Amino acid sequence: MEIVAAIGAARHAVRTRRPLIHELTGSVTANDCANITLALGASPVMAQALPEVGEVTKKSSALLINLGMLQPTMLASLHRAARVAVQEGIPLVLDPVGVGTTAWRTQAAIALVKAYKFTIIKGNGSEIQCLAREESGVYGGVDSLRKVLPARDVQHMAVKLGTTVAVTGAIDMVSDGKQTYMLQNGCSMLTRITGTGCMTGALAAAYSAVTTPLTAAVAAITTMSLAGEKARKQAAQAGPGSLHAALFDVVYRLTAEDLRRDGKIRSVSL
Amino acid sequence: MEIVAAIGAARHAVRTRRPLIHELTGSVTANDCANITLALGASPVMAQALPEVGEVTKKSSALLINLGMLQPTMLASLHRAARVAVQEGIPLVLDPVGVGTTAWRTQAAIALVKAYKFTIIKGNGSEIQCLAREESGVYGGVDSLRKVLPARDVQHMAVKLGTTVAVTGAIDMVSDGKQTYMLQNGCSMLTRITGTGCMTGALAAAYSAVTTPLTAAVAAITTMSLAGEKARKQAAQAGPGSLHAALFDVVYRLTAEDLRRDGKIRSVSL
Amino acid sequence: MEIVAAIGAARHAVRTRRPLIHELTGSVTANDCANITLALGASPVMAQALPEVGEVTKKSSALLINLGMLQPTMLASLHRAARVAVQEGIPLVLDPVGVGTTAWRTQAAIALVKAYKFTIIKGNGSEIQCLAREESGVYGGVDSLRKVLPARDVQHMAVKLGTTVAVTGAIDMVSDGKQTYMLQNGCSMLTRITGTGCMTGALAAAYSAVTTPLTAAVAAITTMSLAGEKARKQAAQAGPGSLHAALFDVVYRLTAEDLRRDGKIRSVSL
Repeated sequence: MEIVAAIGAARHAVRTRRPLIHELTGSVTANDCANITLALGASPVMAQALPEVGEVTKKSSALLINLGMLQPTMLASLHRAARVAVQEGIPLVLDPVGVGTTAWRTQAAIALVKAYKFTIIKGNGSEIQCLAREESGVYGGVDSLRKVLPARDVQHMAVKLGTTVAVTGAIDMVSDGKQTYMLQNGCSMLTRITGTGCMTGALAAAYSAVTTPLTAAVAAITTMSLAGEKARKQAAQAGPGSLHAALFDVVYRLTAEDLRRDGKIRSVSL
Repeated sequence: MEIVAAIGAARHAVRTRRPLIHELTGSVTANDCANITLALGASPVMAQALPEVGEVTKKSSALLINLGMLQPTMLASLHRAARVAVQEGIPLVLDPVGVGTTAWRTQAAIALVKAYKFTIIKGNGSEIQCLAREESGVYGGVDSLRKVLPARDVQHMAVKLGTTVAVTGAIDMVSDGKQTYMLQNGCSMLTRITGTGCMTGALAAAYSAVTTPLTAAVAAITTMSLAGEKARKQAAQAGPGSLHAALFDVVYRLTAEDLRRDGKIRSVSL
Repeated sequence: MEIVAAIGAARHAVRTRRPLIHELTGSVTANDCANITLALGASPVMAQALPEVGEVTKKSSALLINLGMLQPTMLASLHRAARVAVQEGIPLVLDPVGVGTTAWRTQAAIALVKAYKFTIIKGNGSEIQCLAREESGVYGGVDSLRKVLPARDVQHMAVKLGTTVAVTGAIDMVSDGKQTYMLQNGCSMLTRITGTGCMTGALAAAYSAVTTPLTAAVAAITTMSLAGEKARKQAAQAGPGSLHAALFDVVYRLTAEDLRRDGKIRSVSL
């Protein structure tokens, strides 16, 4: 199946199957993650207490681990949930927010990546590079978040990490180590809203419950980028507050046909 | 006083008395709970640290305990606040989010219900059944959230739990064990926004500061359901993001007269 | 430079320099704080785990400490971050939410104020009075939040606390102990949205990265008040939900010229 047909089918499948998505995220963007999951048609469950986290993962169709507001007390819950996901064959998505910015955060993220086979790792170029090289210090400030990595590097990082990587930036890239895609939708105002990256991770988890990792990663990024483009039109005279609200509207209405027609997805030959 | 007159009077009373409502909720929906409380005209206070939580409850006119993001470290705060509420005669509302889904959560909720006399317990059919039967395992996935219980069962659960129960679903029901109401307002898109249930709990707490438990529970559900209906019209071309913002607008403007005229409230004879 | 020229210049400087602002805030308003920071043109970082908090502060251009959802476990992080800020000469803003309402919270806030030289302390009249007098019990309920203190008292509190104080209320006042300003913009519906005070604190931190404490405090309050006025027009038929979203739109678009032309700022001679 062509990638555009596959992401359209995945969009439809989320809406009809309503998979339960377990999302372990921080307090800053948890509400947004839950709402974008609902807008897509899936059902979020956010419980993260250690005595119940494994039981919740076990009932879910995908698990998202987002490190944005990581706390030492949360690490045990993340490991327990990840272990259950691997044991049960539940897709496991990592959003390593801010990895590379501090030593402790970097070590915690690398420990997770070494311990569990993630289905998708989604981050900006700095974050994914940090995980692939197992070193911090590559973080170059907020501007580095938008830097574009060469497609060859992205593919190598996917091989190195043994997973599908979704690298967001001015141009987004997805690779499972064999197949690599460049994604060119987007809206620059999304960078003026907190949590759009976290929401992309939540979408990746929701899609991973119904399709392959590669398709899920492409679908997630394309959904958020197209939502940004379309919301920008809906909220044209306004700004990031209106755009933020409009994102949920657009994702809710976004059809398989929209993704197929408007997704700017290019397969990269390497 | 007829129920429609009573809920209209309660709407007016919240706006004029501005009761202080202590809300112990999780991070996913705390912002929404605080904002819906403000929109109704009451004042939320969200502090939950153990060294101060009792002092805050003591100054408040109602206490909400929402178990959505329950953590072991939060249990001591919940118990201390509940104990103060009971001692001081402050209305005490429980929103047992997700009870029945895990063993630990179920035990924690049952322990609270056994230890304190709650003024109102608001939940979906699965949650209230789980508490009334003191057993988990009745949870049947997300679709069970909308199932409609027979009015007789709801009344029996109110008697069993010794409280006013507010059972949300495709049709909502409220009973104090003697009087039972069916509430038929609503908007299905509310299920595509996280926290609408939590917000209903916050409204129940705010109303409980100014009226009887039965009236408060009916008023809370009718307020949220009518807000959904009216917001749907305001955000007709849009989706859950616009609807979410519009809920606060509608609750803010909603008058006693709106509730009296548009509330579909039917007393059930058993 | 005249104050209106200075706040205009500061508005411009935030947009062009995009300072990294470290914000230690609670879960209720963290999303709003991050989004208002982005709307102004700065970049928020919200990490608060003890093993990394100092490292994050060290890379930042300003630090905000907001006590809204204070927890005993968070105190060590607040102290470590504040110590780094003082050592590194990074502007340090305190938003002592709710100080005076409980004994524990009051002691925690006073301990912070005694231990570190804050650049700006922003609060309502009750909160600032409590800190200046080092006593609780002055809290008179929610209505006290809007009381207007005499300008002379505000100036004395700035001298006593050795900082720039920003006192919000029906009329806002800012003083560094020498120069005092009365600020008369605003929109009463802002009090029906949670977190508008917290967002003002985040704006103060962002401005403090690019200008003097006195200018930063005036700019922050004027930005939020003008945003309320302008958002009220954008959301005129609506209510607090629409106003909330519109705040981010207006702050995003707000120009140096808007601040200079529409800011009602009066220097007070004492």
